Amino acid sequence: MKKIYILDTLLRDGLQGEGVSMSITAKLKAALLLDGFGVDYIEGGYAASNPKDMDFFKQIKNKKLKNSKIVAFGSTRRAKNPIGEDIGTQKLLEADTDVVAIFGKSWTFHVTDVLRVTKEDNLAMIADTVRYLKEHGKEVIYDAEHFFDGWKNDQEYALATIKAAAGAGADSLVLCDTNGGTLPHEIFDITSTIVKAFDLPIGIHCHNDGGTATANSLEAVRAGALCVQGVMNGYGERCGNANLCDIIPALELKMGCTTVGKEKLRGLHTLSVAIDEILNKRHNKQAPFVGASAFAHKAGMHVNAVQKTPKSFEHIEPEEVGNKRRILVSELAGGSNILMKAVELGVNMDKSSPEVRQVLEELEKLEKDGYEFEAADGSFQLLVQKVLKQHKPFFDLEGFRVIVEKTGKTAPCLSEATIKLNVEGKTAHTVGEGGGPVEALDNALRKALSDFYPQIADVILTDYRVRILDPEVATKAKTRVLIESTDGENSWGTVGVSENIIEASWEALVDSVECKLFADKKNNGNNSAKDE
Amino acid sequence: MKKIYILDTLLRDGLQGEGVSMSITAKLKAALLLDGFGVDYIEGGYAASNPKDMDFFKQIKNKKLKNSKIVAFGSTRRAKNPIGEDIGTQKLLEADTDVVAIFGKSWTFHVTDVLRVTKEDNLAMIADTVRYLKEHGKEVIYDAEHFFDGWKNDQEYALATIKAAAGAGADSLVLCDTNGGTLPHEIFDITSTIVKAFDLPIGIHCHNDGGTATANSLEAVRAGALCVQGVMNGYGERCGNANLCDIIPALELKMGCTTVGKEKLRGLHTLSVAIDEILNKRHNKQAPFVGASAFAHKAGMHVNAVQKTPKSFEHIEPEEVGNKRRILVSELAGGSNILMKAVELGVNMDKSSPEVRQVLEELEKLEKDGYEFEAADGSFQLLVQKVLKQHKPFFDLEGFRVIVEKTGKTAPCLSEATIKLNVEGKTAHTVGEGGGPVEALDNALRKALSDFYPQIADVILTDYRVRILDPEVATKAKTRVLIESTDGENSWGTVGVSENIIEASWEALVDSVECKLFADKKNNGNNSAKDE
Repeated sequence: MKKIYILDTLLRDGLQGEGVSMSITAKLKAALLLDGFGVDYIEGGYAASNPKDMDFFKQIKNKKLKNSKIVAFGSTRRAKNPIGEDIGTQKLLEADTDVVAIFGKSWTFHVTDVLRVTKEDNLAMIADTVRYLKEHGKEVIYDAEHFFDGWKNDQEYALATIKAAAGAGADSLVLCDTNGGTLPHEIFDITSTIVKAFDLPIGIHCHNDGGTATANSLEAVRAGALCVQGVMNGYGERCGNANLCDIIPALELKMGCTTVGKEKLRGLHTLSVAIDEILNKRHNKQAPFVGASAFAHKAGMHVNAVQKTPKSFEHIEPEEVGNKRRILVSELAGGSNILMKAVELGVNMDKSSPEVRQVLEELEKLEKDGYEFEAADGSFQLLVQKVLKQHKPFFDLEGFRVIVEKTGKTAPCLSEATIKLNVEGKTAHTVGEGGGPVEALDNALRKALSDFYPQIADVILTDYRVRILDPEVATKAKTRVLIESTDGENSWGTVGVSENIIEASWEALVDSVECKLFADKKNNGNNSAKDE
Repeated sequence: MKKIYILDTLLRDGLQGEGVSMSITAKLKAALLLDGFGVDYIEGGYAASNPKDMDFFKQIKNKKLKNSKIVAFGSTRRAKNPIGEDIGTQKLLEADTDVVAIFGKSWTFHVTDVLRVTKEDNLAMIADTVRYLKEHGKEVIYDAEHFFDGWKNDQEYALATIKAAAGAGADSLVLCDTNGGTLPHEIFDITSTIVKAFDLPIGIHCHNDGGTATANSLEAVRAGALCVQGVMNGYGERCGNANLCDIIPALELKMGCTTVGKEKLRGLHTLSVAIDEILNKRHNKQAPFVGASAFAHKAGMHVNAVQKTPKSFEHIEPEEVGNKRRILVSELAGGSNILMKAVELGVNMDKSSPEVRQVLEELEKLEKDGYEFEAADGSFQLLVQKVLKQHKPFFDLEGFRVIVEKTGKTAPCLSEATIKLNVEGKTAHTVGEGGGPVEALDNALRKALSDFYPQIADVILTDYRVRILDPEVATKAKTRVLIESTDGENSWGTVGVSENIIEASWEALVDSVECKLFADKKNNGNNSAKDE
């Protein structure tokens, strides 16, 4: 099977997308996910443009990547600078990666009107930069920006630019449809010509301005391209980069190529959801392959046929990309999910027991209210316990009050929470403060419980996320809070939903504490209130 | 120029999408929009399946359509029914449209395993139904369901099915990629073969399960198809139908075809937004051609070039589809972004002025703190004013206090905010409540200002988003709040950042109000405090 190399550029080109931004922590997290999934190259950032990107290159060196090479991105040297004194090129070396990608101009108009250099100078800039980076031991990917527009405009010169890169020792030549407007058949024809003319591996880099970036990338592979650049979930400038979540399964399942391999492909859905989670974006339900609706059947006729034979209305098996079939009109589909999830969480349920249906009904009700349990296994476990009547609360809330106060324009904003609980007949009444109202509430809750359940001190919150569910109704909107907690040994997620962000946070905090206490009770019997 | 006929099936196939539903009023509204835009056919519904669809056919007859023919959709007769007694076919006639579309099976496996009839019976069902509808004076579009899968599986039989339709008098044959998984080059090859084999107009109907529905439709046209079926904004079952908002501009602007014509094409953006409005869906920012980000530029280098020549990073002119160029402000931006943005906002700055650098520095500082101005043009405008020393606050905060209280596990969570402002020497001291603390604060602020600036009553918040910037530090995390406001005429975005979500929301609320007051002052001079 033909191996196609995948380069993900979420951390560089993807960040050009409107509303897309990532902290270094987020970038490191995403890089580890991409490595685990098995992409060949991860473009980590623009070495020269941004100190944050340089930090990323430093920090990623301490992580042991299993599958991916990190790529630093830059441009050909500036026209005026001798190569040894070009700051951008020096920054590229400073990034200290084994692989670098540099882009150069292929479109005559861009050379003369945007860069404002002569055509000959541009060729020298390309050759110099590639040669210099090769002399410094780098694997050099040459990105021919605007290649297709350049080719259509001045074929001879576009060719000359990649010849300059190839002659200087580039390891691969990537044809970029930078403006994203080239049609699939044009991509096929031009790429075929280039593949035939060069001995080097040819790559493809597409944008989705015409809505054809997936097709364009696949057509390039059909024409002989061996490397595909893109972004998981298709983030990127304007209409986005080519979506690797579309391209990888097409290559693997339909075009006889191998990329990450069929086994890892089953992790595609999980990866796609996790990337959106990091970017705090809503996962696109309608997305091919990985969307929640991608294998959802609504029309009665279709559901009937799919029940008889899935291939009647599905182009692939959802499991091949880790997705699931969903039947929208009937709840039949969910029963086995519940069962699988319950087993996974160590809750015993029988397939035929009415509890399975009860859990499903409760789940559907809650999901309709905005709850989401994929990242909240802790809350799901409590839900199952409640349905099985195995749940016993560890404390009762008598009340809380959160006060946020600001006493002048430049004064700091103070947060204080008081809380009153009843724990096995005894009252705990405490006060906490914090940088914000939720931290204050969390502190007060911990104080209240620590006398009764000292192990609460081991629990650290490692993640706190807020999603406004219906932003269009503005401050009236429902809020979903997701919290991740750990006690050093185990981690669990919990969820809360309310129109009031404090109340939603409270729900998730209470679930977090209860999960810990419940788990300890099951394991050691050591969580009952201290005074018992 | 070659005329390509467009059939929009939002009102039929589009409604199979998850979460898509329309009342009759909504369907009538959408039909009038589609007619105004100039599509040739509007598929209005499934005559036999739904009384609501039948009502639509009745009511649409009273509207005077200028450009579009209404199409009633149905299937070939049932195997057991003689054609004259087939209920579905009778319903089709009852819909009383000039045009009908019927679908039949092309895939042997569907005939034998889903329909469970013989191959010969299926051919008879196709021929009978087409012939009968022709005898009743209809223009008959024959949709060959699963044609491409059928062809790949049993070419001879797939061909026989459309021959049956053609032989019985069908006016056009539409090849359907029902499962949406066929690759563009396969669509091209198979469609070419069919176009050569028949004298009738051939149509194409694609689904987006492989992410290539746009390309597939365009490839079919290249292969000689004369009619394209799809849905504006790409709604539809699973991953959606082929998106006509992608396909129409490609045909008009890139492939030398005519559909609605170049003049009407300028209404595409408005149409696309209006369709989403009817469906109560958020418009997809990243959508090709019509998305808000489709011509938005973020990277400094790109902005620079776009300023010199738009075609440097735009595949078409945004105005051709009624869209607009936008310059985004971010840390990736350079001075030229700032300048263009300032001009767009009506703030005068000179390229060489030191203020441009000052704004850029301030911007960088704020972005490091977690602010983001891409979606917050209002706050950016205030920032520029502050740097230019043109900013004068409309009120001073003396203090606010927000209280969130819950008096028991099942008691509702109450929110109350008090606020004290100084407006031109006078004190306003008010209290507000709400479903959550931010709504309470917003209400108190409005009360406090309404006596001085009555026009605040016109401002509605249309979007409220919360992003936790460093979720890994959990409840200590910094929070970014983005608010969108409108006064019915203009919309503006504002941003606030703080460890305290209430304070972050406060910042964004204050900016929102100041933007409104500042704009009114500039336009009418009517926003100064009432008592002045």
